[in-house]
Amino acid sequence: MEKFKVTFYPDNKTIEVEKGKTILSAAISAGAYITSSCGGDGVCGRCKVILKKGQVLSQPTGRISLEERKRGMHLACLATIQSDLEVEVPPESRLDLEKLTQEDLELRLKGLYSESEEVEPATSVLGEEIFVHSPLATKLYLELPSPNLEDKISDLERLYRQIRRIQDIPIMQTGLANIRRLGELLRYSDWKVTVTLGKRNGTTEIVLIEPGDTSQKNFGLAFDIGTTTISGQLVDLNTKKVLGTKATYNKQASFGSDIITRIIYAQEQDGLEKLHHAVIDGMNQMIQELVQEHNIDLNDVNCVLCAGNTTMVHLLLRVEPTYIRREPYVPTANFVPTIRASEAGIKINPRGLLSCVPGVSSYVGGDTAAGVLSSGLYKEEDLSILIDIGTNGEIALGNKDFLIAAAASAGPAFEGSGVSCGMRASKGAIQKVKIAPGDFKVNYNTIGDVKPRGICGSGYIDIVAQMLGAGIIDKSGKIKAGDSRCVRNGESGREFVVAFKEESDATSDIVITETDIENLKRAKAAIYSATSVLTKHMNLDFSNIKKFFIAGGFGTYLDIDNAVAMGLLPDLEKSRFMFIGNSALAGSRQILLSYEAMKTVNEIARKITYFELSVDPGYMDEYMAALFFPHTDLSKFPSVRK
Amino acid sequence: MEKFKVTFYPDNKTIEVEKGKTILSAAISAGAYITSSCGGDGVCGRCKVILKKGQVLSQPTGRISLEERKRGMHLACLATIQSDLEVEVPPESRLDLEKLTQEDLELRLKGLYSESEEVEPATSVLGEEIFVHSPLATKLYLELPSPNLEDKISDLERLYRQIRRIQDIPIMQTGLANIRRLGELLRYSDWKVTVTLGKRNGTTEIVLIEPGDTSQKNFGLAFDIGTTTISGQLVDLNTKKVLGTKATYNKQASFGSDIITRIIYAQEQDGLEKLHHAVIDGMNQMIQELVQEHNIDLNDVNCVLCAGNTTMVHLLLRVEPTYIRREPYVPTANFVPTIRASEAGIKINPRGLLSCVPGVSSYVGGDTAAGVLSSGLYKEEDLSILIDIGTNGEIALGNKDFLIAAAASAGPAFEGSGVSCGMRASKGAIQKVKIAPGDFKVNYNTIGDVKPRGICGSGYIDIVAQMLGAGIIDKSGKIKAGDSRCVRNGESGREFVVAFKEESDATSDIVITETDIENLKRAKAAIYSATSVLTKHMNLDFSNIKKFFIAGGFGTYLDIDNAVAMGLLPDLEKSRFMFIGNSALAGSRQILLSYEAMKTVNEIARKITYFELSVDPGYMDEYMAALFFPHTDLSKFPSVRK
Repeated sequence: MEKFKVTFYPDNKTIEVEKGKTILSAAISAGAYITSSCGGDGVCGRCKVILKKGQVLSQPTGRISLEERKRGMHLACLATIQSDLEVEVPPESRLDLEKLTQEDLELRLKGLYSESEEVEPATSVLGEEIFVHSPLATKLYLELPSPNLEDKISDLERLYRQIRRIQDIPIMQTGLANIRRLGELLRYSDWKVTVTLGKRNGTTEIVLIEPGDTSQKNFGLAFDIGTTTISGQLVDLNTKKVLGTKATYNKQASFGSDIITRIIYAQEQDGLEKLHHAVIDGMNQMIQELVQEHNIDLNDVNCVLCAGNTTMVHLLLRVEPTYIRREPYVPTANFVPTIRASEAGIKINPRGLLSCVPGVSSYVGGDTAAGVLSSGLYKEEDLSILIDIGTNGEIALGNKDFLIAAAASAGPAFEGSGVSCGMRASKGAIQKVKIAPGDFKVNYNTIGDVKPRGICGSGYIDIVAQMLGAGIIDKSGKIKAGDSRCVRNGESGREFVVAFKEESDATSDIVITETDIENLKRAKAAIYSATSVLTKHMNLDFSNIKKFFIAGGFGTYLDIDNAVAMGLLPDLEKSRFMFIGNSALAGSRQILLSYEAMKTVNEIARKITYFELSVDPGYMDEYMAALFFPHTDLSKFPSVRK
Repeated sequence: MEKFKVTFYPDNKTIEVEKGKTILSAAISAGAYITSSCGGDGVCGRCKVILKKGQVLSQPTGRISLEERKRGMHLACLATIQSDLEVEVPPESRLDLEKLTQEDLELRLKGLYSESEEVEPATSVLGEEIFVHSPLATKLYLELPSPNLEDKISDLERLYRQIRRIQDIPIMQTGLANIRRLGELLRYSDWKVTVTLGKRNGTTEIVLIEPGDTSQKNFGLAFDIGTTTISGQLVDLNTKKVLGTKATYNKQASFGSDIITRIIYAQEQDGLEKLHHAVIDGMNQMIQELVQEHNIDLNDVNCVLCAGNTTMVHLLLRVEPTYIRREPYVPTANFVPTIRASEAGIKINPRGLLSCVPGVSSYVGGDTAAGVLSSGLYKEEDLSILIDIGTNGEIALGNKDFLIAAAASAGPAFEGSGVSCGMRASKGAIQKVKIAPGDFKVNYNTIGDVKPRGICGSGYIDIVAQMLGAGIIDKSGKIKAGDSRCVRNGESGREFVVAFKEESDATSDIVITETDIENLKRAKAAIYSATSVLTKHMNLDFSNIKKFFIAGGFGTYLDIDNAVAMGLLPDLEKSRFMFIGNSALAGSRQILLSYEAMKTVNEIARKITYFELSVDPGYMDEYMAALFFPHTDLSKFPSVRK
């Protein structure tokens, strides 16, 4: 097989590869990291490179403009090598990924990420009351009859007998560590102990035995492990009360903003370890903050329940994610067993449990299953759609009879990441915006009613829709020349000032740039087109869908009108939409609190059919058509047209 | 409460204790170790001390002769303190127990114990065929269909699906370690793997996943963990073939010859650790030798099944045995869960399993349950008795309707320990002996037909019975003056030469001393009286018992006539006795090879009623009456009387 030399600039890395390989695969082999969100499917358009020398064969793509083509730009994933090449990776395509030592990494992570922040979660559409209260870990206070010459069964059998007098547990297990201290513990505590029972893969485990009555202290954590954001809740497992909710960026973002680059990084020397530690580190920090703020002993936290996409769950457990992105795209495990949290490095009670919501496929994970659970979509007579707006947008369609889901790589813009003044939906985030059509006066509202620090997802949706309405941007998202002092040329092109430095808590003006708008446009296009293709695939029309559950880390607020106006959501009566907040986190909490919910989500995960968007011949066209505000085909958006 | 000072010599250790405490308890508190086999019940007579100064109140006991009483001797366990005391611990009562460092211990163990020896086991009375072949660990070779776009279930679910196509397993579990390497392993092995399935507490665990077909290599170990002797067998789990059997002394003997002193030692600083390591060390050494001799990879040994008395199982698992000897005598666990063998320090495949046969009570353990299983006693219509002759003699009586068992502290004499020329039933052991009545000519037979090295249990039984028959000893066991050159005064009193140095492989003449005979007499008295009391307790007579199963580490041979003649076994027709060898080891092997046997032994352990001999008012009298050869009441031994 003929081989060619490919050199990447500015890294100046050269590699010899076989003819016909893509530039992207050569770059990965050479260690010249190029961003890519869609995994080389030619969809995301993020792997643009400039060909300086040599010949390639490039598939046609709408992601390269005529102007860009003139500059020698290609999508690295669609261009196959036909000669020796010299390739320039432009700054926007460069993955800022150095070979880090552990110390470097820690310093960097410390610098990059501050503490996790308290967030106010949106109320779930359905209360948690629908499932019987039977948490992953329960505590039972027992007063054992002390042994005597007539009742001489062993300590362990005595404990089992007393538990079985209260609960019907056919298969009960316990570890050697508990047995080793049992004799002394029972006598020291005068035969009054509290056992923590954990549900573990079809059996019940005595996780912990404590002296005296500690049954009031039984806490757990529900997590949504997102590609960009980790959200966690501390829950009182007895009262079902949520004590606190926090969110933080997933520190794995240091190794690439999307799933695919992380999977690639996991193949590097120590790559998997670093990715694993990054997510665990963030979780442990959040757990530490939550327990401290609520004066809870870490040892009283007995279990953790995680919902995450399939790659996130693999990295959480330090399982190689390699095969997720290799045809035929098979994860190592969708249903992972409940393990001891300490096995994954999570710091709660050392014997506490970790359970993960089962996933469906490589690209539809437990977060989707948890969302389907908490939305209640799976038990409706009518057809519904769940749209979970995140870095990986997931769309689930169905009712009590069938469920189908797809994943769309949207990028992190709606999570306030990868956009110039973005931030999470936390204190100081601009979340509601109105722009007056005449003088472009901006009227905004922040979370916590404090001075603004940045813009969160719902704020961006409002801004784009309002800019569109006020005529500040055109359908393609370009900022028109205007005589307002809010419109100006910034360092990286044209930008619109949402809040000036003087009125804010930020170090500079809070702006939205044309690049930001481009990012938001791609994100909304990915989600809208995925929703549309999935609906068509089932021979349905949006008019057949009775309810749209909109989920995502938007805090408490999302303006449906504006989301429709920018073309993120289809143009239907407002009453069909229901904003349900972080549905994965809500589902995760339901499962944490109810074994019945766990069984239900297992069934849901088994029932969901995965639909691979990239194999649908119409997807690319749909996506391209959606790369306008609100859409190329305005007949789809009659209310906006008016 | 009045307190007194007690000083122990020659240790010169002083302690202040409350009035009315026993000398034994004071000695334990002072760290002046006194031997005691019966745990302070006044039965064994081993805790003799000499009162030098002060007043005690002593219960009457037959274990102190008139002469001894004159010398100021008392049983430390029966003498309560009434004033300041000075107490001399004579050499025979001193427990040779130093505060050992780990290095000391290792040096000492190395010096004391050589390699374990190959032993030829007696054939079990019942073949192993009665239970369905379903070993603790099974191997399944699987050729998985590789995934494709139509069959995309995850690797783990693919594995589960294939296993369930072959076996009906409702609850299947696997550990994170297996999942972490699964993706690569399956692809590396081209989807052809062998899984090791282990039975674990009502569930099935995928213990191990290996590339290719290793299903032919599946080995396990059955152990009988005795107080004095550890016996182990390497078994091919596929063919049920026993590849090798070995025995070694339990290294714990360094810390005391009986259970009680070991339990006391376990309370010392690091005592439990040392006892635990001593037994594990012996087992690991034996395992290492067995796999090397049979060219087996340690990684192909997937499980270990142990039968042992309750204290031995506690020490094996490093569980505090303290409460076994404190009223009301409750062990921490009779039914211990199956764990990973590595958790207990046993070196087989690091993910291999360890299961212990369930025990009945503090003093009747899993060895008895295993013996009841392998003897078949539990399913007979007729009444039978199982007599397991060991350091802890266990007697089980019953049939298919009921089971009752008792334990008698016999000491290690029948295991060839604590007697001057004793050895295990292994190569070079004198196992059969005839002594001509006239010239006292000794005719013996050794295991392996080699030069004698010592005497094993069956040899001692023959020798004592034959000496009695030849008139060399009287009914009390005293060696009569004789003009044979075999009878002489040795260093520690009168002795009889069984084999002279010239004809042996020993460094000096092989003799039996009066002290040895005394030890053997106490051992046989403990076992005979326990058997008798247990039978009477059930309102039965020996004539009601159809079968006597005689078990113990005697190798392949035990002369029933001689055992009756010395008064170890009751005087009945020979046809009622059946020598079944190491019944605990045989049972352990059956359980290793069959899950059905495991379920049966669980039922047996639950069904056995424990009978505490020491609370029976007649036991002491029975014991005292049995301290003659064959018995004080010769009417019980009509055939011997003739």
